Amino acid sequence: MNIYDISTQAGVSIATVSRVLNGSDKVSSATRQKVLNIIEKNGYTPNAFARSLCLNTMSTVGILCSDASDVYQSQVIYFLERELRKHSYTSMLCCTGHNLQEKKEYLKLLLSRNVDALIFIGSHFIEASGKGNSYILDAARKIPVFLLNGKLDGENIYSILCDDESASRDITDLLFDRGCTAPIYLYRILTYSCRRKIRGFCHSVREHGIDDTKKLAYSCPGSVEKTCRILEVVRESGVFFDAVVAADDELAAGAVKYAIRNGFQIPADFQVAGYNNSVLSACSSPEITTLDNRVEFMSITAVSHIIQVLQGKNVPSKMIYSGQIVEKETTRKKDLNL
Amino acid sequence: MNIYDISTQAGVSIATVSRVLNGSDKVSSATRQKVLNIIEKNGYTPNAFARSLCLNTMSTVGILCSDASDVYQSQVIYFLERELRKHSYTSMLCCTGHNLQEKKEYLKLLLSRNVDALIFIGSHFIEASGKGNSYILDAARKIPVFLLNGKLDGENIYSILCDDESASRDITDLLFDRGCTAPIYLYRILTYSCRRKIRGFCHSVREHGIDDTKKLAYSCPGSVEKTCRILEVVRESGVFFDAVVAADDELAAGAVKYAIRNGFQIPADFQVAGYNNSVLSACSSPEITTLDNRVEFMSITAVSHIIQVLQGKNVPSKMIYSGQIVEKETTRKKDLNL
Repeated sequence: MNIYDISTQAGVSIATVSRVLNGSDKVSSATRQKVLNIIEKNGYTPNAFARSLCLNTMSTVGILCSDASDVYQSQVIYFLERELRKHSYTSMLCCTGHNLQEKKEYLKLLLSRNVDALIFIGSHFIEASGKGNSYILDAARKIPVFLLNGKLDGENIYSILCDDESASRDITDLLFDRGCTAPIYLYRILTYSCRRKIRGFCHSVREHGIDDTKKLAYSCPGSVEKTCRILEVVRESGVFFDAVVAADDELAAGAVKYAIRNGFQIPADFQVAGYNNSVLSACSSPEITTLDNRVEFMSITAVSHIIQVLQGKNVPSKMIYSGQIVEKETTRKKDLNL
Repeated sequence: MNIYDISTQAGVSIATVSRVLNGSDKVSSATRQKVLNIIEKNGYTPNAFARSLCLNTMSTVGILCSDASDVYQSQVIYFLERELRKHSYTSMLCCTGHNLQEKKEYLKLLLSRNVDALIFIGSHFIEASGKGNSYILDAARKIPVFLLNGKLDGENIYSILCDDESASRDITDLLFDRGCTAPIYLYRILTYSCRRKIRGFCHSVREHGIDDTKKLAYSCPGSVEKTCRILEVVRESGVFFDAVVAADDELAAGAVKYAIRNGFQIPADFQVAGYNNSVLSACSSPEITTLDNRVEFMSITAVSHIIQVLQGKNVPSKMIYSGQIVEKETTRKKDLNL
């Protein structure tokens, strides 16, 4: 049964049914009772869907990610959904992949569903060239846009970022402090966030007397096994390295596998640092020293910002917070150095 | 701008605007053009939201899971969303947790949003006692309900399950075949799926001459580290075990950690088997022998069933498919036994 059936059975207009559902006082009490009786008789839920007829809102937030099965993104999704729900918003989830056209189509779909706000998880939605960002700027003309770990200047666009550059510098500093002499960097794709991480890594490396940072960052798009093989290829090409700083914990797990398979002792003669402080860092043996980029904090803060913006309040368009090193078993503890 | 504004500006009823948006032929071409002009002038997207006025559908499927950050559930969510999107459905995601009241509220919310179907991920939604299942049976009176790895008899309810019982028996058989003599079982909570897994495990154990299966299954609700500690407590209590069969890969990673920390050689004198064939089994060193329960296959099949049911076609209410053992490094290979 839908709103049409109700209006037909009650012998009133759809607008009148909507007014009743929406609690308007422009309906006589007799008409209201008639409509409510029919609704009750038919077990129709006076719902958000019907209310939205008048309010033009569904209290829904669109969440866009590239891959909900990614360990980092899945955590963000979980915390966002729980937090949005606490504020009576539901989540429309879109796994866009990395194709720009597909991202645009998903966005169009969400806008056609009258979502109240958009959340983009990760910086891969932002094109460094700037050409591919117009779809986000267009969307921001209609509803507020929140970028988690992405940054884009524009009206109605809000960014919340972990200070990945400082964090990556700090964790590389830690490896030097623990005795490594030649770290290399592993990443997946060159997103905005990843560029900042590499910048922080290179900053630390240069401060420790290595001037040529050209051959220090390697792209590993694949799995643990593939990462392990890529490191073997790098080594065979004549590059010496005694530590790996990775853009995420899965890449770091690949580095641990490489070290074990090739007879290096971790952390005595090979050190590894991951990123995200995910369950993957705990599943590895030895457990991986990693960077906690505070996924729960970021998600709760993002929802708080969204609610404030939707209430017409003024919030800063950009917020950067610091991460935290969680030292585990893949870096040499101070006392081991003595 | 909403449908009311359009109807006001065009001087026609809301029903007429709806008819135009829905492509009905009961509108004169002059009226149709007038409405479309106003829509175009105001940049209004003739949207799913407006179309749903007539069709009473939003082409949305509600996905309920306990925790989207769980490695297994996040994979299911990813594949479901991608597959639903291919069929022009969007996904409303709900992370319900394990509290029955909260599950009921989420379900009510989804129904109020007029979703077309419901997908429940995991068997924890089904209460063994049967008392807590009425909210699912009620929902199925309105829209089709799909249980992934859960089972509940009822009209308009469809189950797709991995044959966890046979799979767990097979993987335990494998451990015996590889030389273990005393396996124990680790699980999180006693869901329907988990009970079947334990049944399969016990079946194998009894077939290998161990009659008393009472003290063989242990609950580990926590992390890798906690699982490791629980195993130490079990050992200290006097129970001898030389293999662990786990209900998921994270628990298995905890067993690997226990073995390494306590000086056991894997797989020479300690063997481990996981479940789900997740990235966690690949991140562990040694990599964990695990059961591939075909998450992608299950998700694609589920969406295919949903589409067929929504098209009025007849599909079986229950489908069970077999899993596949993926043998990695935590079980003794045949040639090592020679």
